[in-house]
Amino acid sequence: MNMTKNNENRTILPEPTIRRLPWYLSYVRMLDNMNVAYVSSTQISKELNVQSSQIAKDLSFLNIRGKTRIGYEVHSLMTGLEDFLGFNRHHDAVVIGTGSLGTALMQDHGLEHYGLNIVAGFDVRGDVIGQQLGGVPVFDIAELSTWQQEHNVSIAILTVPVESAQEAADLAIASGMTALWNFTPYRIKAPKGIVIANTSIYAHLAIIYNRMQEHEQ
Amino acid sequence: MNMTKNNENRTILPEPTIRRLPWYLSYVRMLDNMNVAYVSSTQISKELNVQSSQIAKDLSFLNIRGKTRIGYEVHSLMTGLEDFLGFNRHHDAVVIGTGSLGTALMQDHGLEHYGLNIVAGFDVRGDVIGQQLGGVPVFDIAELSTWQQEHNVSIAILTVPVESAQEAADLAIASGMTALWNFTPYRIKAPKGIVIANTSIYAHLAIIYNRMQEHEQ
Repeated sequence: MNMTKNNENRTILPEPTIRRLPWYLSYVRMLDNMNVAYVSSTQISKELNVQSSQIAKDLSFLNIRGKTRIGYEVHSLMTGLEDFLGFNRHHDAVVIGTGSLGTALMQDHGLEHYGLNIVAGFDVRGDVIGQQLGGVPVFDIAELSTWQQEHNVSIAILTVPVESAQEAADLAIASGMTALWNFTPYRIKAPKGIVIANTSIYAHLAIIYNRMQEHEQ
Repeated sequence: MNMTKNNENRTILPEPTIRRLPWYLSYVRMLDNMNVAYVSSTQISKELNVQSSQIAKDLSFLNIRGKTRIGYEVHSLMTGLEDFLGFNRHHDAVVIGTGSLGTALMQDHGLEHYGLNIVAGFDVRGDVIGQQLGGVPVFDIAELSTWQQEHNVSIAILTVPVESAQEAADLAIASGMTALWNFTPYRIKAPKGIVIANTSIYAHLAIIYNRMQEHEQ
């Protein structure tokens, strides 16, 4: 990997672009599975309902350009997207809070296809501490800081009850973790430099309910 | 419930406002648990890192206004938010695709606190059909249409593999379901009038990876 390539990989994209890239990836992965060699931006546009010009612009961030009249080479578009999105590198993570959602994430081997490797779970409940969930060991949350000194994991997945969200985040940050994937509906506060991604499934429920009312009118 | 109230409940909000309302709710639920009677928008602002003026604007959509020098009455703010967001009404849903994520949602009783009641699962795998997951029966996907004629459920939760996403969506829509909660990274196409909410956890992973690189620079 040369310097230019390295710099490209570190381009900071606008969030809407980052949200569209996995759509392109899931589509070209399907095409690649079907041994399709080329795909035009018109085809992608039709399939994903995103304007061709937007697709070309998004992919130009990755320095991927289609060929006139042929389009994009499917396999290299796929690997280019995976490479850029970080899905083909390993990222270790811990799950804090091994309730039903935390356990599901520990058992979901689909996440490995996106580069996420859950190496440990942490909890306060005596009945799960010392157990394995989906092949992943669960430790006492009181051991997080000591455990982290040896393992130096960057990503903490927060699937604790909402009232423990900030406390779990503080603990993860104090232990040296730098990225929090927050599944609680709580709005976590963190110092600058800490990455927070909020996946609040309840907010999406509110959107569904609200939009359903719109159509009922 | 009078006409005015009814119309208020059916106000269509901008998506960023709908995303913030559950943050307010989770915070005031905590305050309510601690028997706090009043909260000012300054307090909410400090706690959630949203500007006071934005909070006042968001809550004005719900016709909720604070009192000068006292602020918002915690309990009525909580019930007002729950009522508006639809979290205290029952919404039946089915899960299509009972893999690890689908099963987790069927077992996650937390969703009930947000008004979502999962009444059935559907799958193609012979080993789960006829079983119960988290107390919810799993049926053959081939029976969806017949089952739906009796049950008339509006919401389908799609937790199928990405290559089956469109097919599952088409089936749900053909059966008369009007809202799709799509957990796959596939961009589903649907006729106008069908509500789609995308919860693509993989897109959030891409955002985490990208932002982590930013801080490493």
